[in-house]
Amino acid sequence: MTYTAPAPAALDTMLDAVSFDASGLVAAIAQQHDTGEVLMIAWMTREALQETLQTGRVCYYSRSRKKLWRKGETSGQVQHLHEARLDCDADAVLLLVNQIGVACHTGRRSCFYRAFEPQGLVELTKPEIDPNQLYGHTHT
Amino acid sequence: MTYTAPAPAALDTMLDAVSFDASGLVAAIAQQHDTGEVLMIAWMTREALQETLQTGRVCYYSRSRKKLWRKGETSGQVQHLHEARLDCDADAVLLLVNQIGVACHTGRRSCFYRAFEPQGLVELTKPEIDPNQLYGHTHT
Repeated sequence: MTYTAPAPAALDTMLDAVSFDASGLVAAIAQQHDTGEVLMIAWMTREALQETLQTGRVCYYSRSRKKLWRKGETSGQVQHLHEARLDCDADAVLLLVNQIGVACHTGRRSCFYRAFEPQGLVELTKPEIDPNQLYGHTHT
Repeated sequence: MTYTAPAPAALDTMLDAVSFDASGLVAAIAQQHDTGEVLMIAWMTREALQETLQTGRVCYYSRSRKKLWRKGETSGQVQHLHEARLDCDADAVLLLVNQIGVACHTGRRSCFYRAFEPQGLVELTKPEIDPNQLYGHTHT
């Protein structure tokens, strides 16, 4: 992990190139950088993307809680940024990350753990960590 | 490629499990099934996802053109479905595909061809196909 943050001026120029939607959001896909496993998809505001690029720790925006969501802040399952990429129409980013532990709130490595199979939806993986252990009882 | 379409009843049950948003959409990430390369992100309506699962050829929904977008219909750069997966909150799908040619309208294999680097956005790849050749002059 040798992520290098951009200088402030370069960062601003890059953020200006991103097309945030009417709600101020871009889609963000997290992919484990060395295995290629797609872990999750979430959303980012300009502020979330800026923090992510500055710190090298992935920060999303929670649409339900309407605030910055520093991935792993509660659960410890942080995402270290390896490289961020922007797509052709600049409204989605791909985050190549090193995921500590699991990405999914169900305790699974990836959120995409169900497959559309001929007989119906099939679970491909079991939780690696008990979700109660991930979030403790801090939210009582 | 041995994709097997689900039976109609199983397909309906699976589609009912998907949480389409207020606009009737889910995000769909396309990933090359054997290399892990993330190719693009687009959107699907229930009808688009149904057609994709039935035919094994990926069909998105174009938000700008407001109609089904059978990937490769104009350009020939089709996506053959290998497996589709649903995420934990059921509002995004991951499509493991075999991409024929290139996914990006710029002629590049992946739409995520720009990296956020310390000095600014850097193009990682050049077009493999001339975009004019992809779309010809059928849209004059």
